[in-house]
Amino acid sequence: MEKLSATEITALLLGFAVMLGLARAFGELFNRMRQPAIVGEILAGILLGPTVLGALMPDVFSWFFPASGNLAIAYHAIITLAVVLLLLIAGLEIDLSILWRQGRAALLVSIFGTLVPFVIGFAGAYAFPRFWGIEPGADLLTFALFFGTALSISALPVIAKIMMDLNLFKTDVGMLVMGAAMFSDLVGWIVFSIVLGMMNVTAGDDSPVTNGGHGPGIGVTIMLTLGIVAFTLTLGRWLVHRSLPWIQSRLSWPGDVLSFTLVLTLAGAAATEAIGIHAIFGAFLVGVAIGDSNHMRAQTRTVLHQFVTYIFAPIFFVSIGLEANFLENFNGPLILGVLVIAFVGKLAGCMLGARLGRLPTNDSLAISFGMNARGAMEIILGLLALQYGVIQEEMFIALVVLALVTSLVSGPLMNRFVYRPKEWKLEELLVTSQFVPALEAGTSEEAITELSRIAAASAGLNADLVTRTVLARERIVGTSLGHEIAVPHGRIEGLKRPILVLGHSANGIDFDSPDGLPTRLIFLLLTPAQDMTPQIQIMGQIARFFRNEQARQVIYDTRSVDMVRAMIKTETGLVEAH
Amino acid sequence: MEKLSATEITALLLGFAVMLGLARAFGELFNRMRQPAIVGEILAGILLGPTVLGALMPDVFSWFFPASGNLAIAYHAIITLAVVLLLLIAGLEIDLSILWRQGRAALLVSIFGTLVPFVIGFAGAYAFPRFWGIEPGADLLTFALFFGTALSISALPVIAKIMMDLNLFKTDVGMLVMGAAMFSDLVGWIVFSIVLGMMNVTAGDDSPVTNGGHGPGIGVTIMLTLGIVAFTLTLGRWLVHRSLPWIQSRLSWPGDVLSFTLVLTLAGAAATEAIGIHAIFGAFLVGVAIGDSNHMRAQTRTVLHQFVTYIFAPIFFVSIGLEANFLENFNGPLILGVLVIAFVGKLAGCMLGARLGRLPTNDSLAISFGMNARGAMEIILGLLALQYGVIQEEMFIALVVLALVTSLVSGPLMNRFVYRPKEWKLEELLVTSQFVPALEAGTSEEAITELSRIAAASAGLNADLVTRTVLARERIVGTSLGHEIAVPHGRIEGLKRPILVLGHSANGIDFDSPDGLPTRLIFLLLTPAQDMTPQIQIMGQIARFFRNEQARQVIYDTRSVDMVRAMIKTETGLVEAH
Repeated sequence: MEKLSATEITALLLGFAVMLGLARAFGELFNRMRQPAIVGEILAGILLGPTVLGALMPDVFSWFFPASGNLAIAYHAIITLAVVLLLLIAGLEIDLSILWRQGRAALLVSIFGTLVPFVIGFAGAYAFPRFWGIEPGADLLTFALFFGTALSISALPVIAKIMMDLNLFKTDVGMLVMGAAMFSDLVGWIVFSIVLGMMNVTAGDDSPVTNGGHGPGIGVTIMLTLGIVAFTLTLGRWLVHRSLPWIQSRLSWPGDVLSFTLVLTLAGAAATEAIGIHAIFGAFLVGVAIGDSNHMRAQTRTVLHQFVTYIFAPIFFVSIGLEANFLENFNGPLILGVLVIAFVGKLAGCMLGARLGRLPTNDSLAISFGMNARGAMEIILGLLALQYGVIQEEMFIALVVLALVTSLVSGPLMNRFVYRPKEWKLEELLVTSQFVPALEAGTSEEAITELSRIAAASAGLNADLVTRTVLARERIVGTSLGHEIAVPHGRIEGLKRPILVLGHSANGIDFDSPDGLPTRLIFLLLTPAQDMTPQIQIMGQIARFFRNEQARQVIYDTRSVDMVRAMIKTETGLVEAH
Repeated sequence: MEKLSATEITALLLGFAVMLGLARAFGELFNRMRQPAIVGEILAGILLGPTVLGALMPDVFSWFFPASGNLAIAYHAIITLAVVLLLLIAGLEIDLSILWRQGRAALLVSIFGTLVPFVIGFAGAYAFPRFWGIEPGADLLTFALFFGTALSISALPVIAKIMMDLNLFKTDVGMLVMGAAMFSDLVGWIVFSIVLGMMNVTAGDDSPVTNGGHGPGIGVTIMLTLGIVAFTLTLGRWLVHRSLPWIQSRLSWPGDVLSFTLVLTLAGAAATEAIGIHAIFGAFLVGVAIGDSNHMRAQTRTVLHQFVTYIFAPIFFVSIGLEANFLENFNGPLILGVLVIAFVGKLAGCMLGARLGRLPTNDSLAISFGMNARGAMEIILGLLALQYGVIQEEMFIALVVLALVTSLVSGPLMNRFVYRPKEWKLEELLVTSQFVPALEAGTSEEAITELSRIAAASAGLNADLVTRTVLARERIVGTSLGHEIAVPHGRIEGLKRPILVLGHSANGIDFDSPDGLPTRLIFLLLTPAQDMTPQIQIMGQIARFFRNEQARQVIYDTRSVDMVRAMIKTETGLVEAH
């Protein structure tokens, strides 16, 4: 077989070392400033790309990253693998049952939050084609479809990160935003894959990434795309769900689950690439099919996540900066136009959905700002459109800027509307009669049943109803926060004030925790159905408190609820003053 | 940048899906038959390569794996990354302090087990050059150096797997074999890298992987190689050891430890490739430098290990089968000759070392058969020699067969000499006075001190001496076996019979377990210094017993030593009858 030369291998390895090292250094720097790592990683790429390194030291730049030849091909092969893995992870995070079970408001936010920006983008493209850089005679329909999709898509990883930073990840508001974003992503990718199919048919041989027009016709591509989506999300999903337990019990765990996931991902990616849409769409669909199965344990997800987030994702984001010269193609008015139309479309759509779903204005605003975050998905979409010739460098850079700006501002804006004055304090909710120093339960179901009975008694509720509500919520996504704690919860119709019951299990119970540790402290939280605020505030306090390792240790070892209350009181004060 | 076409991406992704899927399926099949997975993975490659697929369906084969062009380059780039990561893992497993602390016998086995096969191989090459396929006029010195190295190198991953299968992994015999194999590997790779440097200077432009003779001269290459080795194993190692705690405490864990490890590995690989020896040598050295640090937690190693063992290693092993036609180049007499000279050299060297170290004949034989296992390392060595033109296809296939045969027979042969009739039964060693139902200790040091005191009292030994011995052993490699158990142990001068003390910790203690779980059952085991057998037998029984999950659960929950003894008695019987 033809091989890379020693010089090419040296450049390739050194190139990746520099890319990964610089990306992680900048990513960590931005994390320190409480900003998303992706912003730093893309900046690192701009430094290494034609914008800075290419302008200052063109020889060094072209030695590392030549425009053609074996080395360019080698980079492309590995970056393709990286982005395939990134989309696998994005798909794994999607669990449509979360959306269905969030009820009417979530569904309305999803639909309007996706539809309105799409329509505004589509119409905006037709209204001012020259402003967006479309030459007369170019394929305006394809661009309009792409632009609508680009404005309606969300960024699940960035949104998840913001939810975690705000301690909202497993609350109902967090789940609503996540569920609605999943819907946007899924619909967005399906529409975009059809746009890609259209491009592939109309594009000539001059586009480097198409089949040169030899792919199947547009009708066939759309049919095949919808066929693959339908198959993956029904039969494929069911097959995965049935085979995972067999693999986990009969083969090596988690190793063989990794191999199995990778084989399916590569095969799915190859299938979508073959029918004329991009490989990453198949990887994304396989991720959705696998992620839906509750047999995929949180710990396996964590291993995969670590590898992709800290190795493959940075390599991909750095490579963005290599694609274009960000200074030469920086078009201020265009960028401003994209930002305005993107903010207006997304915020208007989400507000409309939330208000129709009868959510209070504060919650609606928080949800809309959350949904407005775009990140990796926007950039991948833009990159493909650039490679297929749907857009030019200036528009690509405007989309990258849109992704970065929304990633940066969504957290602070959401924060403004979430942290209203505290009404409920953790230590006041914990009283002696609601502390179980030694749970009898051996499973998470038993623990929830045991604690629900106590909670129901103290609030004069039906114990069965409470148990059912909390168990139903638990089944959507496990409520373990890691660190040996879990917060099963539910919103109960007719409840007047929050109820908190704490149980302690010496042996630990399996709540499918992300860190694989057994759960020893279980907080059962009931809040009134019509108000999301107490849940957000109380779960936020629990999450913040247990980030402190010393505090955790004291709580694990104590059997007195007064001790727990005292600790929480002191530590919450300490942590917040910090 | 120049990019792969859609058809090429499809072939690449589908090719890797098939490679990984078939490799893991065959690997698991061989695991089921209690054989090393690598044998199945290489067979999968022979099926996919020119030997079977290429002969039966040449069109399909050349669509997937063309001999030249962009696709060949893309495969080579990804397989290069895979083998770089494989060598990183191989290096991580090397911890030279294990060897030094095993004492005189281990050192003698290392030295003679490496030197004798090297000398026999080197002499054999000069005595019968034509038999090994060396044409008159070819560079016999380079071949002789290579052949000696190929016969002296071991296969740490295969040996580690055999030790685990025989429940010997953390016993003294296991550690001795592992330590000696590490020595062989380290010396072997240094010698081989010098051979590569020689090749690189003498080879002309016709060899596809050399610099085309433009590399530095041979003297410079050797100096640079030794310089890099010296730097990595002294200052580099120290720097890694100092930076790891900072990274683990200040940055994201384990994600940033992964990024850090990868960046160093890629940079090290690029450095050795640049000076004219192969990239994998640098990856191996970085692995050694990082693996030596006890700040690299077992759990981080496990994550890395899972990814490489189940994704990158299978891809590399499958690619071996793509390199040559195994039927056309199958030379029976040559293979037999290689097998004979390899077995004779390794067994003679190890027996000599072990007997000089005054080990009993049984233990010496067991150790020699263990050291005879070759696997991945042999194959990588052979592949490089093939690519650099030091050997031809027939010799390459003989080396692959040698690796497979020794991987298959080492376990059974070793087993014969390790499992002599049992003298010590676990349940008889556990008596009431030596069971601590609730350990006070919070750290592994405290637990060892607490249990050592009891063990010393019951045997009339000095408690400080016992504690020191066990702690010293613990510091070499943690004795956690996962599943919440650990078996700290030591061999004590003057002790007449084994002493076993069991401690139970409700909260769990950090013994740096591979699965990240806290350790709740701690078996402290003391055995006589001059006899390795009781330790092997007792630790084997503990490891086997705790593979059974039901048995584990009962033990965790009980506080009565009689219950523990009864369980062990029944379950050991059950497990063994199984």
